[in-house]
This record gives sequence, structure tokens and C-alpha cells, in this order.
Amino acid sequence: MGNKLDTDTPIYIKVSTKDNTAIIVNSGGLTKGAKFSCGLALNERIPEGHKVALCNIAAEEEIIRYGEVIGYAKDHIKKGSWIRESLVDMPSPPGLDNLPFSTNLVDVSPLEEGFTFLGYRNSDGSVGTKNILGITTSVQCVVGVLEYAVKRIKEDLLPRFPNVDDVVALNHNYGCGVAINAPDATIPIRTIQNLAKHPNFGGEVMIIGLGCEKLIPQRLNDGEDNDNILTLQNESGFVNMVQSIINMAEERLDKLDKRKREVCSVSDLVIGVQCGGSDAFSGVTANPALGFATDLLVRAGATVLFSEVTEVRDAVHLLTPRAATKEVGDSLIREMKWYDNYLNKGQADRSANPSPGNKRGGLSNVVEKSLGSIVKSGTLPITDVLAPGEKVKKKGLTFAATPASDFVCGTLQLASGIHLQVFTTGRGTPYNLPIAPVLKVSTRNTLQEQWHDLIDINAGKIANGEATIEEIGWEIFKDILEVASGTKKTWADKWGIHNDLALFNPSPVT
Amino acid sequence: MGNKLDTDTPIYIKVSTKDNTAIIVNSGGLTKGAKFSCGLALNERIPEGHKVALCNIAAEEEIIRYGEVIGYAKDHIKKGSWIRESLVDMPSPPGLDNLPFSTNLVDVSPLEEGFTFLGYRNSDGSVGTKNILGITTSVQCVVGVLEYAVKRIKEDLLPRFPNVDDVVALNHNYGCGVAINAPDATIPIRTIQNLAKHPNFGGEVMIIGLGCEKLIPQRLNDGEDNDNILTLQNESGFVNMVQSIINMAEERLDKLDKRKREVCSVSDLVIGVQCGGSDAFSGVTANPALGFATDLLVRAGATVLFSEVTEVRDAVHLLTPRAATKEVGDSLIREMKWYDNYLNKGQADRSANPSPGNKRGGLSNVVEKSLGSIVKSGTLPITDVLAPGEKVKKKGLTFAATPASDFVCGTLQLASGIHLQVFTTGRGTPYNLPIAPVLKVSTRNTLQEQWHDLIDINAGKIANGEATIEEIGWEIFKDILEVASGTKKTWADKWGIHNDLALFNPSPVT
Ligand SMILES: [Ca+2]
Ligand SMILES: [Ca+2]
Ligand SMILES: [Ca+2]
Ligand SMILES: [Ca+2]
Ligand SMILES: [Ca+2]
Repeated sequence: MGNKLDTDTPIYIKVSTKDNTAIIVNSGGLTKGAKFSCGLALNERIPEGHKVALCNIAAEEEIIRYGEVIGYAKDHIKKGSWIRESLVDMPSPPGLDNLPFSTNLVDVSPLEEGFTFLGYRNSDGSVGTKNILGITTSVQCVVGVLEYAVKRIKEDLLPRFPNVDDVVALNHNYGCGVAINAPDATIPIRTIQNLAKHPNFGGEVMIIGLGCEKLIPQRLNDGEDNDNILTLQNESGFVNMVQSIINMAEERLDKLDKRKREVCSVSDLVIGVQCGGSDAFSGVTANPALGFATDLLVRAGATVLFSEVTEVRDAVHLLTPRAATKEVGDSLIREMKWYDNYLNKGQADRSANPSPGNKRGGLSNVVEKSLGSIVKSGTLPITDVLAPGEKVKKKGLTFAATPASDFVCGTLQLASGIHLQVFTTGRGTPYNLPIAPVLKVSTRNTLQEQWHDLIDINAGKIANGEATIEEIGWEIFKDILEVASGTKKTWADKWGIHNDLALFNPSPVT
Repeated sequence: MGNKLDTDTPIYIKVSTKDNTAIIVNSGGLTKGAKFSCGLALNERIPEGHKVALCNIAAEEEIIRYGEVIGYAKDHIKKGSWIRESLVDMPSPPGLDNLPFSTNLVDVSPLEEGFTFLGYRNSDGSVGTKNILGITTSVQCVVGVLEYAVKRIKEDLLPRFPNVDDVVALNHNYGCGVAINAPDATIPIRTIQNLAKHPNFGGEVMIIGLGCEKLIPQRLNDGEDNDNILTLQNESGFVNMVQSIINMAEERLDKLDKRKREVCSVSDLVIGVQCGGSDAFSGVTANPALGFATDLLVRAGATVLFSEVTEVRDAVHLLTPRAATKEVGDSLIREMKWYDNYLNKGQADRSANPSPGNKRGGLSNVVEKSLGSIVKSGTLPITDVLAPGEKVKKKGLTFAATPASDFVCGTLQLASGIHLQVFTTGRGTPYNLPIAPVLKVSTRNTLQEQWHDLIDINAGKIANGEATIEEIGWEIFKDILEVASGTKKTWADKWGIHNDLALFNPSPVT
């Protein structure tokens, strides 16, 4: 690789030598008769990112990509034909009770160079990468008043505190009118609690409560009832509420403004990885490059979270061998079973993922999507597993169980404490998070060209040989350090856009 | 009533002659020894809004309020004692299979005076009470870009269109990463579809989609793929997306600016009623007054929606007799059963409602809360039942099934098409909706005094005899007409605060 190929030359990507299928690289797809350098010619038009049969595949025979079975042919598929989604029967998901644990543990060789970044060290030892006044809420009822106050704080106060990056209201749809004691209520509650402890808030978070909500504000404050909490029902009217919030903010802005960046080790970083709007290139360009960066981060001592249960589920047999211990393996299985049960209760099945856009992008089913998705996690041992919204506990590679939904996964990884999320996308999404930046990596050149002011890194160059997986992996790694240091901004942060927090609440609303 | 009582005089409210308990009216409660005009003296201090035993109640004997059993005494309760929550065993909910239908149908006598308001008549015959540019979304991914564009539209364009009240982005956490084909997915999808059809948007709603989401934008547009839809993945980058949204908005603002108010009949109005942050006064001041207003509206030919399944459930035996037809009764039971099943699946029980604030306000349990809550629905026959998020179909009193959660109920009633929500509150909440105003009615004088710039109408005057239920009922009715006409603003609309939409999504996230 490393040499750019003529874009008119018909080209496909085959990932494993075992594969009997490959995906079309050429922008716009290829027409009938197109001939590859190996001699293979197409029987019909195949769109970009979609699969071609590399040999004749008999009905009921295995269709293999990434060296794994992604499905079975519904009918005879001729060599050079388009393997449409409608021709593929999905395999059963791997059973969860007899998976091999810890049979594929690669040695973690530390990086030779000691990479650093500039961060804000907090009194509890954690490190922030932004300096934000966080204002959390114990119930959605307060949001209207809070947003009014935040607007005033940003306009009137923030300019006086140049070292503070932003004021962020942690709005959510929880807190009351919910079954607060139902078993799964622990998930949204833990998420809200941990969001307030994000290292970018420097321990100076404010809590705005109403006063009659089920989620009492003290639960967001380690049970303490101190001057972090403002209860609207104790205030004398709206004008008073707003002024009290502003006064409370001013004290904290004053403290936050004194925070200073200092040199920190990469091992202080917590990085999340995710994909969204995936296409057939995700698994061969952006995700492998991100997997390489994941390995670099882990080798440098950092923590990396990968997530998205519904995309991991069908490839979990490739992850349990990487569980560092039996406990990690058991926890991984526990999270898969919880989700299987959750989907069953809601009468949903695996075909709910991928999305129509994924399918138009060439992904036949969740098995193919999963194989391309888990590549983001690199190759190293999995050292920990977090239930949804749990705070990160260990260095190294962690599986943080979350839905695959981009904004829900983002919210849960924030609660776990990520400083930055690397997000690979094939179809394109402008998604960004309010507390931590989202670094966007495109899977295709065409997306980067079209969305030149939203895509931060282009992994599409890997497909046509302009760059190697390793080169893009290093680019991601180095960009992470720059963004974490505040010396570089992601496109979405430059525009100042972000998505609302979206809690994962599997328990009833009342 | 009608004469103000000395606030130092000990006073209680007994609702039905059958009651063996009454609530303390005096602000701050009453101390031991306090003596009522009837001769009853307190054995102990009782807080405001809490219950006193009017006679000796033996262990396991019925505790009666509103003429209904709200529980059973856990222990002997002496006359003049405080009936604490801990002394009350909850009764079983009424069974759903043998309830009487249509046995209590009161005649609807039309109001003599023909009341009117000033509204915007739409081409489909519906009437708007505000003139809003609505911009809906098929997936949460687009929210960051959309909010950036909306800010620009409000700053740069809106001042040029003085007849347009507002630009509202219909943000929500749905659209992708969800089990879109699960049985209960119909609820959030229908809600989003119907929100876009709100009469205040004048049929000029815009739809912003991403391009790869599961909820395809055409589903928000009656299946049509016309120029209402803007797909971000078709745009060349961020700057371009924003400009395209602005251009699309300008065309629609131009049309909306030509809308004019005309005289409309009250029968064109759709009014929602809800309570939140309830206390023991809710059921004796604000809710009965609202119930009177509900009757006035129905008698004037309008549609009134009442909701909150978890608060109706324990009093449903008082509602089925008011079902206008067997079909209405069956639908009411269907919605109760759906919710029973939903709560069971989530292992939640009825004790999840009321909230701690309700309990501090004097409400022992959901039975007592329900009896006080359904009073909002007045006395007239129930002519229709809507599943969550369904569009209103008939004139008259409609049960619109929703959770009791204030912001979820508000969102669902908006989808059903309410022009205004009347919201009674005892503890106080600043809650407001983005598309339709929320008229807030306080249950106590003290709340109105404390939140003088948020409470629109004070029903607390009923408790100490300063006003009658009928007087406050008429005040609510007349304020509705003024707010609907745009000649009066609610406090929350004056401040421009509102809560985020909160979808009811009982189906899985993926
Ligand atoms: Ca993904
Ligand atoms: Ca995702
Ligand atoms: Ca918002
Ligand atoms: Ca209520
Ligand atoms: Ca409510």
C-alpha cells in the first residue's frame, strides 16, 4: 500500500484469504463487464461498497467475509455476481454458554516514546481535557429555567472568565414520572450520577433540582446536601431562581478560571470509540485504522472504551478469547445476556440493526456489520467490562456495554468518563457531544470530499492505497493528543454544535 | 364559600359526607391542641395538607376520603391524630374485567352564551392558536446542525416576519438505534408524525433528516417525498446544510407571515388538562376548579383531553360509568391493561407513583392521588379514548392515555393536538411546552405568593373561602380563551422558557 491507484481501475477489497466475497471500492460502483486485475469480471452492475462473489457459491453454502461466516446463500450465486442482501440468510448468533475465554491474549508491548498531552489535573487525581462549568439536573422539570439562566451566564459572565471553555447544562428526560425502584432504573440513575463527575467539570458541578422529584438531588452529590444543590421550590419565583443560579455559577466560574493545563501522560486519557452510519468500507478502512490507534493508546497506558452491544453480539466469539481473565469473560457474557433478554422483552430481534442506510451502504446484516465493527477494538486483551453508564475503573481496553445508537452510546461513554470519542462513519453524521469532543473519521474519500467541514480524518485513502491502516492509525492517535491538549479543535467543536444527551432508560415511565 | 376566613382559625376540608378523614388547610400546619369549630381537637402536630382522623379508626378499618376507600388503617388511629403515610395500607386496584359501563351519563347542557376566540384557520379546517414555523427531525443525529440553523433563523430572519410567533425545532431522541419494527414502536413514531401536524404550524412544517436513519423522513410526511424534506447527507458540508435549512425556512416564514387571526368558535379548541407536583390540596381546590372548566369547555363544544394512566388506574371504576358507549369503555380498559402489562414487564409497581414530594404534600398513596386527580375531568360523559400520541378524533371529553410524567404527558398531548394545557400544581413546577402554552393553576395560596411570576391562576383561594370552585373554573375558562386568542400570555411564555419534548418509547433501543 502507500501508492495511489488510478481510480478508474476496477478494484475490490478482500479482507481474509478465506473470503469468497469482496467489496467494490470504486466510487459510484462498477458496471457489468468490469474486469479486475485478477481476471474476475462482473456479471452485473454492483454499487460501491457492495459485495461481489469471488467464486460460484452454491445455495445454502457459506458466504465468508473477514474469514467468518456472514451468512448462507439463499440461492446459487454465480462468480462475479452481486451478493444482494436478499440473497443472504443470516446465521444464528453464537451461543453464550460455551465460548472460549482468554485463548487469544496478545502481549501488550509498551510504546517506546513517552507521549504526553496538556490536561487539567483534578484534586481527585483525574485529568480534564476541557474546562467546563457543568450544571446538572435531578429532573427534566427544571430545564426551561436552567436554559434561560445558562444563556444569561454565557452572555454576561463567561466573557469575564477566559480560561473557562463552556457552560453545559446536563439536561435529560429523567428524574420523575419514572419507576425509580424498578431493577433497571439503576442504569439511568447511575448515568446521571456519573455524568456529573466528568473530569472536565473539575469537581465544581452544580445541581439544579425542583424539590418534589423522585430522583432527589442529593443522590447526584454522593448523598450530601451541600451548597452544590439549588432547589427551585425553595426560591421565590422565576426571577429569583435565575439570579440564584447565576450567583452560584459565578462562584464556580471564578474557581474554574484558575485551572491550568499541565503536562500529563497519555495513560491519564480515557478514549471512547464508536461507529455510526456505517457502510461496507467501515470494516476495511476507518475501523481497522481506529483499531490500530486503540492498540497504540493501550500500549501507551491509556484506557479505551469500545461499546455497542448489538454490534458486538454476533462477533462475541471473537472477543471472549481476548478476555484477560475469566471474570472479564463472564462479565462480557453477562452484558450480552442482559441485552438479549432486553430485546426479547420488547419483541425486537437482531434484524432491527443495521439501518436502511447501512444496507444501502452494502452491509447485508448485523453479522457483517459486527465483524467490521469490533475491529475498532484493536487486537489487545480486554481488561475490564462496564455495565451501561458505569464509571471507568481500569487502564487498558474496556468493553463498556451500551446500545449501538450513536447518541445513547455517546451519553453512556461520557458517563463512563471519556475525554474524547473517535467516531467512524461511512454515510456521515454531524453528531457531537457537549462535554467531550467527537473526532470524526470517514470511511470513504467521497464522504470526506462532500463533508469537508465536518470530517476530521479521512480513512478512505486506505481503500485506494493512498495511505496505510498504520498511517491513519497514527494520525488518529496524534490528533487525539492535540485535541485533548486544546491545541486543535474538531470541526464540530469549531462550529459549536452538539447533540442532546440521551439517557438509556430500559425501565418504565409512570 | 366566598367569604375569606381568618387564617389563624384551625380549618380542615372534608370532601364527602362519608369521609372519616379531612385535610388541614392552615399554612404551616396546626399544633397539638388546635381546635376546630366542630369541636375536634388535635392530639399531635399535623402539617399543612396532611390528614386528620375525624373519628377513631380501628386497625384494618377503612380510611375514607372523596367518599372512597383510600386505604386501611395499619393500627388503631385515634380521633384527632395524624394519618401518616406509614399508617395506611394501600387497597388493591379495581379489577378491570367487570366494571360497569355507561351507568353514570350526565346530560351535556350547551352553554347559553356563544363564546369565541381569535384563531388561525388552516386549510384542513383545523385552527391554530399560535403561528409557529415548526421544524421536525427524523433522527436525533441532525439536532446539532438544526439548532445552529434555528439560532440563525431566529436572529436573522424572524424579525422580518412580525406575524410569526416563533421557530421551534422538534428535537427528540428517536429515529435510529431503535427497534423500529417492535410492536410498541408505533407509539414514538406516531407521536413524531402527529407533532409535525400540530395546527399551530399551519401545514408548513419542515422535516430535517440525515439520510441513513431507520425512521425515514417520508414517514413524517404521509409517505410523500416533496420539498418539505431536507436530507443532510445530500448536502455538501456543514455551511451548506445550514444555508439550505435557512433558505427552506425563509420560504415558509413568508407564507406563515400571511396568516391572520379570525373569530372562531370555542368548539375549535382542543385543551389538555394535567396535574404535576400534586399535594393534598390538588383534589380539593385546583382540580375541582379545573373539572368545572372542563365541563364548561365540553358544554361549549370544545375537546378536552385528560390523561395520566397511572393516576387514573386506581379510580377507573369511577370513569367507566361515564363511558359514552361500550366502545369507549372497552378502549379505556384496553389502555389500563396495556399499562398494567407495561409496568409488570419492567417490574415496577403502583407505589412508583406518587413521588416523595407528593407524599410530603400529604398524599398517602396513588389511590388518594387518583381520586384527587380524576376530578380534573369534570362530570360529563367520556366520548373518546386515544392511545398514546394519537391525534384527537372527536369533540367532547377524551381520555388520552399517557404516562403521568409531566413532560411525557405534555409531549403526547401536543401530538394529539392540544392548543393549550391547563396544569394544576401544588408543590410547583416551571414546566412549559414549546408549541402550546401551559396555563398554571396553583392549589395553595402560599405557592401563588412564592411563585408570583410563574403561577397564572390561584385556586388556593378556594381552601380558605376567598373564592368558589365555580369562580376559579370560570376564570380558567376565560383565561383559556384569552391565551388562545393571543391577547394574554402565560407567565412561562412571557419568560420564553419551555421543556424539551420527551417521547414515550416503551420499545427497545438497539
Ligand atoms: Ca456502529
Ligand atoms: Ca453507533
Ligand atoms: Ca435542547
Ligand atoms: Ca398528576
Ligand atoms: Ca403529571
